[in-house]
Amino acid sequence: MTLEIEYVGFAAGVLTTFGLLPQAYRMVRTRQARDVSLTWVVVTALGVALWLCYGLVKQSPSIITANGITLVLFCIILAIKIRHG
Amino acid sequence: MTLEIEYVGFAAGVLTTFGLLPQAYRMVRTRQARDVSLTWVVVTALGVALWLCYGLVKQSPSIITANGITLVLFCIILAIKIRHG
Repeated sequence: MTLEIEYVGFAAGVLTTFGLLPQAYRMVRTRQARDVSLTWVVVTALGVALWLCYGLVKQSPSIITANGITLVLFCIILAIKIRHG
Repeated sequence: MTLEIEYVGFAAGVLTTFGLLPQAYRMVRTRQARDVSLTWVVVTALGVALWLCYGLVKQSPSIITANGITLVLFCIILAIKIRHG
């Protein structure tokens, strides 16, 4: 049971990390960001940056990898939101 | 150090959980979702649902609470995306 549930946790991490990819891709492609909340982007990106710090201190490769990827995607989304509103 | 970094983790969790609130609020207010990727919403909501299962099995109140709130917000976002595109 313990091992099975870790697969669920791993799948959850993969989905919540890479789920943001189509959102970033859509914004890169369309250069449109009107329906995207700037507050969402800034607050969540800050949270992800703190998770990255947490993972670095805890020396957790999974937390570092997941939040590192997510932070890069949020930087792309933020850049498009600022430039194209 | 261990205690301080847990505050960072807690702040990270609060920001990544409630950061989605302004995005859901914006979509409820404007009834617009054109720039929001349906794939992002579906994939991430599925990941959050798996995190919720993980938290329930692990009996982790913080994982359950954070992902429960996030899942409700994603359901609102999904409903608006489906209805208003």
